[in-house]
Amino acid sequence: MTKTITVLPGDGIGPEVTGSAVRVLKRVFEKNACDVQFVEKRIGGAAIDTDGTPLPRDTVEQCAASDAVLLGAVGGPKWDNQSMRVRPEQGLLGIRKALGLFANLRPVKAFAPLIGASPLKSQYVENVDFVIVRELTGGLYFGKPSERRGDHGEKVVDTLAYSVGEIERVVEKAFRLAERRKKKLTSVDKANVLESSRVWREVVNEVSHRHPEVAVSHLLVDSAAMQLIVNPGQFDVIVTENMFGDILSDEASVMTGSLGMLPSASLRKDKVGLYEPVHGSAPDIAGQGKANPLAAILSAAFLLRYSLDMDHEAGFIEKAVLQVLERGYHTADLKVAGEQTKLVNTTEMTDRVIAIL
Amino acid sequence: MTKTITVLPGDGIGPEVTGSAVRVLKRVFEKNACDVQFVEKRIGGAAIDTDGTPLPRDTVEQCAASDAVLLGAVGGPKWDNQSMRVRPEQGLLGIRKALGLFANLRPVKAFAPLIGASPLKSQYVENVDFVIVRELTGGLYFGKPSERRGDHGEKVVDTLAYSVGEIERVVEKAFRLAERRKKKLTSVDKANVLESSRVWREVVNEVSHRHPEVAVSHLLVDSAAMQLIVNPGQFDVIVTENMFGDILSDEASVMTGSLGMLPSASLRKDKVGLYEPVHGSAPDIAGQGKANPLAAILSAAFLLRYSLDMDHEAGFIEKAVLQVLERGYHTADLKVAGEQTKLVNTTEMTDRVIAIL
Ligand SMILES: CC(C)[C@H](C(=O)O)[C@@H](O)C(=O)O
Ligand SMILES: CC(C)[C@H](C(=O)O)[C@@H](O)C(=O)O
Repeated sequence: MTKTITVLPGDGIGPEVTGSAVRVLKRVFEKNACDVQFVEKRIGGAAIDTDGTPLPRDTVEQCAASDAVLLGAVGGPKWDNQSMRVRPEQGLLGIRKALGLFANLRPVKAFAPLIGASPLKSQYVENVDFVIVRELTGGLYFGKPSERRGDHGEKVVDTLAYSVGEIERVVEKAFRLAERRKKKLTSVDKANVLESSRVWREVVNEVSHRHPEVAVSHLLVDSAAMQLIVNPGQFDVIVTENMFGDILSDEASVMTGSLGMLPSASLRKDKVGLYEPVHGSAPDIAGQGKANPLAAILSAAFLLRYSLDMDHEAGFIEKAVLQVLERGYHTADLKVAGEQTKLVNTTEMTDRVIAIL
Repeated sequence: MTKTITVLPGDGIGPEVTGSAVRVLKRVFEKNACDVQFVEKRIGGAAIDTDGTPLPRDTVEQCAASDAVLLGAVGGPKWDNQSMRVRPEQGLLGIRKALGLFANLRPVKAFAPLIGASPLKSQYVENVDFVIVRELTGGLYFGKPSERRGDHGEKVVDTLAYSVGEIERVVEKAFRLAERRKKKLTSVDKANVLESSRVWREVVNEVSHRHPEVAVSHLLVDSAAMQLIVNPGQFDVIVTENMFGDILSDEASVMTGSLGMLPSASLRKDKVGLYEPVHGSAPDIAGQGKANPLAAILSAAFLLRYSLDMDHEAGFIEKAVLQVLERGYHTADLKVAGEQTKLVNTTEMTDRVIAIL
C-alpha cells in the first residue's frame, strides 16, 4: 500500500530545508523500494497570503489522511503585526490540535564536532543525551476561558486545564521512551503551587507502577531550569506540561552548540506524527541557500523511525549527518572543530549526506 | 523615629544566614547612629511545627507594621509530604500577598573572582549585569479557580489572571529601575499564544510613552530562555509575569558561578520591602556553620537601599563582599579563583565582611 507524507514547507527557510529532507527521504525510499508519495500543502504565513488563513481546510484534510507530516517552519516579520487577527503560529497550534499530536519529543544530544560552539564548558555538555517530552495539545496554550474581561477590558485570564486522561497518555509515552533508553524519567511540575501540577504528579506516580523498571523523580520547574545548566548530563527522559516544556526545551536547545541541528517529533497513540526542525523560519537568510538543512534531515530520520517503522534507515541518516560534520562540512550557522573545515550551502550539505547514504 | 525590621529566619540554614545579615546591619546602624529595632517572627516549616500554620497571624501583623522584612528561607524534607495540607511555601506566597509586594527584583551579576565556577564559558558571563523584575502577586500562582473538577476529580484547572492595573504597576517599577541603569528594558511574554501576554505587551507599550528615554523590546519567553544562555550580556532590566519570572530568574541565577551570592528584593509602591537570598533552605547543611551568608548579607544591602534610603551604606556592603572574595575567602559552596584561597565558615565569613566595613 502506498504511504503518504504531507510536506508543509511553511515560511522563510522552511521550503529550502524541507526540500533537502525530502531529497534524503526519496533516496532512502528508492534504495528500499518503498512505495511513498509526497503531497505538498500550505501552512503559516504562506497560507495567510494565499488563503487568508494560516491553516486551510484542505491542509488539515490532507494531513489527516497521511501517514506522516513533515513541516518546515512558520512565521516572519511580514505577519508579525500584533493587531493581526490571523497569525502564522495559529497554523502550527491548529495542526497539532487537529491531528491530536499530544506528545512532542525534543531530543538534546551533543554532537562531538560542535561541542566547542556551546556557550557551556565542554565538560558540562559532553555526555548530554536526553529527550524532553512536552505535552502539546493541552494546558495553558489551549485552555478556555482565554479572554479579556471587565467593562473596559481591564482584566484578562488564560486557563491551564488538563484532564487526567490527557496527562496519562503523554506520561505513558514518556515512560515507554525511557524504557528504551536509560530507564530514567524526570517529571517536571510546580506542585508546590499549582493544583494542575499536583494532579500531574499523582498521575506520574500512578503510571509508574506499570513501569517498575523506570526510576522516576520529580523536579520543580524552577529547579529544572537551573539543573539543565548546572548538570544536564543527569537527564534521560524529561516529561512536562505544554508551557513548561516550551520554555525548558528551548533553554536546552542552545546547549549543544547549534540550534540548527535539532529535530522534533510530535506524536499520538498510533504511528501518525508530525516532524519539524526546532529552529525557526529565519527570514533574514531565506532563499539564499544558507540554511542548515540538518535539523530537517534529522526530523526526516525521526519520521522514518516513528511513523514508518524504519528504525534502521533512521539510524543511517543520523550516522551520515555525524560523519558529514566530522569531515568538517558546515553551513554558516555551525562552528565545527577540526583542521580543515569547509563552508557549504544548503544543497551541498544535502548532497554530502546523500553521498554517504 | 525608630525603624522596625522584622526578621523571619524560617527553616534550614535560614536562621544562620539571617543571623549574619543582622550582625552586618547592626554594625551599619551603629556606625550611622540609626535607631532601628529588630523583631523576630516565625514562618514556613518552623511555624507549622509551633503554630500549625506556615504564616501565623502575628507574623503578618508584625510584618505589616514594619519598615522592612528580612527573610531566610523556607521548606525542607520534613514538610515535603505531598499529602500535607499546610506547606512551608504557603508562608512565602502568603506574606508576599499580604504585604502586596508585587515586584520581585532578582539581580544577576558576575563577581569576577567567581566567574571560573560558572557552567558557562567566561566570555559569556564576564559582562553580565542585569535585573529580572518578576511580577509576584498575580498570574498563574494566585488566579482562581485553581481546583479539581468533574465527578471523579478527573479534570483540573489553574488560572492565569491579571488586571491592567497589576501589570502597569510592576511595569512602571521596571521602567524606573531601567532609568537608573542602562536604560534598556526587555519585556518577556508569550504574546503569540496567550491573551494575558497580549494585554501585558500593550501595557508595556503604553507605559513606555512615559519613559521615552528607555529602549524597550519584547521577547517571547521561549526565546528568552535561550537568549539568557547564548547572550546574557545583552540584558539590562527584564520584566515579566510571575511564572515566567520564576523560571527565568532561576535559570539566570546559575550563570554567575554561585547561587549562594544572589540577593532579592520584593517591593511595592511605598518603601516597605521583603528581602531574601535566592538560595533555598539547604537542609543538608543546616546548623553546621557551612552556609554561605553572602546572599543574605547582600539582601540586607538591598534592604538599606530600597527601604531605608541608605544607598551609600548598601554600596559599602556590596564592595566589602567583593573584597572578601578577592582576598580568597570562601565558604564550601564557592569556588573562588586565586593563588591563596581560604575556606571559612559562616561566622568567619561574616566577621570578614564586618571587618572591612
Ligand atoms: C510558535 C509557538 C506557538 C510554538 C509553541 O510554543 O508551541 C513554538 O514556540 C514551539 O515551541 O513549537
Ligand atoms: C517556593 C515557591 C512558591 C517560590 C515561587 O515560585 O514563588 C520560589 O520558587 C521563589 O521563586 O521564590
